[in-house]
Amino acid sequence: MSSRDWQLDPRLADDSHPLAQLDLSELRLFDDGNYPWLLLVPRVVDARELIDLSASQQRVLLAEIDHCSRVLLARFAPDKLNIAALGNRVEQLHVHLIARYRDDPAWPDPVWGRGPPRRYSPEALVERVERLHPVLHARELREQRQPT
Amino acid sequence: MSSRDWQLDPRLADDSHPLAQLDLSELRLFDDGNYPWLLLVPRVVDARELIDLSASQQRVLLAEIDHCSRVLLARFAPDKLNIAALGNRVEQLHVHLIARYRDDPAWPDPVWGRGPPRRYSPEALVERVERLHPVLHARELREQRQPT
Repeated sequence: MSSRDWQLDPRLADDSHPLAQLDLSELRLFDDGNYPWLLLVPRVVDARELIDLSASQQRVLLAEIDHCSRVLLARFAPDKLNIAALGNRVEQLHVHLIARYRDDPAWPDPVWGRGPPRRYSPEALVERVERLHPVLHARELREQRQPT
Repeated sequence: MSSRDWQLDPRLADDSHPLAQLDLSELRLFDDGNYPWLLLVPRVVDARELIDLSASQQRVLLAEIDHCSRVLLARFAPDKLNIAALGNRVEQLHVHLIARYRDDPAWPDPVWGRGPPRRYSPEALVERVERLHPVLHARELREQRQPT
């Protein structure tokens, strides 16, 4: 099966907003205004674990994680990044990238299981997406993530 | 500074047991018998974030994550793997690899913040380390993780 047969898990779709199609992954904004929180969802049919990706797909995902991490640092100046692939509730492989601050609601704990998310208002969503604008330039992403 | 100047964070040292020296990372067993739980700690001075590693170091870490994931699957047959780099409390870059089961104490939540860990008894530690024995063969690891 090719990536054309891939479909985003409906729970991930409900909990996040689309940002960009990267080479391997769909990049989404998690719908919780408490944290600048990205999701990378590789468009690989039936992938649940990182090791379900081929070695080359893993390396592309790593480059996408690297690039999106740099975007979060540049645009939001967090105190720490949290990167995680858990998938205990939603099995479709997805990677969380979360910008954390020492004064955010969950610090220093992980963000999961802290009660309901603070959904973005339309205005707040527009503002956040505009701050993420650089990451939306998929062409630019491709140029920047050549191996060094 | 070279990796010879690197020192394991004392809190990570207290909370885990040494398993092996991989090419980039020190591999350790987290001291919580509730879960088969590995730590990969790259021996890179002052690294806090994944992006503090060079592109080539990132790729070695990815290969170490891939290999250790396969060892956990092969030896413990978990329902899910959890992979995370958080570092909100201990800044030294470290990656958690945790074998999860639908009947484990935290499922389906993440494992962090669930109260004190269940420390291994000496006998249980020996049993667990022996089940992880394949991952201790660093030479074998090097052979297996050539890029494909």
